[in-house]
Amino acid sequence: MSKIIRFGVSLEDELLVKFDALLERIGYRNRSEAIRDLIRDRLVREAWKEGDKEIVGILSLVYNHEKSEVTERLNLIQHKNIGAIVSTTHIHLDSHNCLEVIILKGKSREIEKISDLLQSTKNVKHGGLLRTTTGEGLE
Amino acid sequence: MSKIIRFGVSLEDELLVKFDALLERIGYRNRSEAIRDLIRDRLVREAWKEGDKEIVGILSLVYNHEKSEVTERLNLIQHKNIGAIVSTTHIHLDSHNCLEVIILKGKSREIEKISDLLQSTKNVKHGGLLRTTTGEGLE
Amino acid sequence: MSKIIRFGVSLEDELLVKFDALLERIGYRNRSEAIRDLIRDRLVREAWKEGDKEIVGILSLVYNHEKSEVTERLNLIQHKNIGAIVSTTHIHLDSHNCLEVIILKGKSREIEKISDLLQSTKNVKHGGLLRTTTGEGLE
Amino acid sequence: MSKIIRFGVSLEDELLVKFDALLERIGYRNRSEAIRDLIRDRLVREAWKEGDKEIVGILSLVYNHEKSEVTERLNLIQHKNIGAIVSTTHIHLDSHNCLEVIILKGKSREIEKISDLLQSTKNVKHGGLLRTTTGEGLE
Repeated sequence: MSKIIRFGVSLEDELLVKFDALLERIGYRNRSEAIRDLIRDRLVREAWKEGDKEIVGILSLVYNHEKSEVTERLNLIQHKNIGAIVSTTHIHLDSHNCLEVIILKGKSREIEKISDLLQSTKNVKHGGLLRTTTGEGLE
Repeated sequence: MSKIIRFGVSLEDELLVKFDALLERIGYRNRSEAIRDLIRDRLVREAWKEGDKEIVGILSLVYNHEKSEVTERLNLIQHKNIGAIVSTTHIHLDSHNCLEVIILKGKSREIEKISDLLQSTKNVKHGGLLRTTTGEGLE
Repeated sequence: MSKIIRFGVSLEDELLVKFDALLERIGYRNRSEAIRDLIRDRLVREAWKEGDKEIVGILSLVYNHEKSEVTERLNLIQHKNIGAIVSTTHIHLDSHNCLEVIILKGKSREIEKISDLLQSTKNVKHGGLLRTTTGEGLE
Repeated sequence: MSKIIRFGVSLEDELLVKFDALLERIGYRNRSEAIRDLIRDRLVREAWKEGDKEIVGILSLVYNHEKSEVTERLNLIQHKNIGAIVSTTHIHLDSHNCLEVIILKGKSREIEKISDLLQSTKNVKHGGLLRTTTGEGLE
């Protein structure tokens, strides 16, 4: 089990006043919490750069389901990469537009590749990849 | 019903050769498709900047469900903002870590605010917001 | 004169070990320094979003000086916005390509606009805007 | 010498209307020019990812010159990496704050490293790296 460590940070009062004001506006109740979040976010960005760390990615795809074969193609690519796909949520945005949100887990290099392939599929209007983490080692 | 328009783009052959090579590597079958994607992505980024356009956002939260009250707090904030939340998917990443993926729909200014509030909740390890679109007007 | 304040941050040892390893790899000698940088970077991003804070932006433009009128047009736009321009550095990258690096100071909303205008000038190959700060209030 | 090629792009009129409106607001006079810019920007981002392509980076550093040794340290690191540094512009922002804008040329992997090192130097308040190009092959 990991234990809590406490260490001191020193900075000029002017900077701290500004930081505290921002935290209040955002909704943080706690300075330590905000700093831990900044640290973890920096570590997650590094992990993605490395390519072979296990990470979690969230892929979004917006498409018109009436367009020829887009649903079938996206389905086919997902089945070929089934090892990396944790779940898929499908939302009917309106009578034409669908949103598919795919949760992926694996090495960042591979997740980026699957993401490129799905986003470049014909008739996908907009795609994006959110780079997050398995949470391991980020207590 | 919208109709298809065709227009010409002129560029130096050297640039086109490089672009085609990239498209092949990514998985595009079609130059027009890739250019439509670049155009739509630019428009989606503008829509988010404006603040009052209706957009879709995907929020991810990674947290340790054993930590005091984090699950309850996230739930409470979501219930207070129920009008903007389309769906929530919950994944058990391992015995400690949970992933929650929340699909939000509304004005970008409001979605950013809800996202800040949920991400800054105590014991959320990592959060991110993916900025996408309702697909409307992006045929 | 502002004075130094010291406050405590608590986190799990596992997270601190990872952060320290990253800091060593990057070149930080000091944990406080790294945390101050994370805080200041967050504040600078907020200041840019607000639109009317005084900020500093660095604009880069790469273009082929042989192409018709690009040099004249960039010069003309800069003269019309002389109040916001602090300095311009011109580098001859090779016999065709020029790099212009323009330092801008003013409200972020206005700097974004001048940046859009210069980047969209015909025959500019690539442009970018680096969002930084006057340093004021970020001791 | 490279020659101009013309190819057709097809899209729905609704999308084109939106794109044209954005281009007018930004300042583009020409649809082809805007599409070439989107293509080149995508290629520049890819080149940076690859690590060993020759690129150009613009590094900004804001610091208080009165703080102990920061000027000397930044100078020393720059001298050790003199092969990658094209030029340095120094701006006196106010009586305390300095801005240094350093133009770097080399492999993206190396430029990122020098950038990390300079940004993490003690008493640098804010740093940023703008990723651009030598312009070669992007006619």
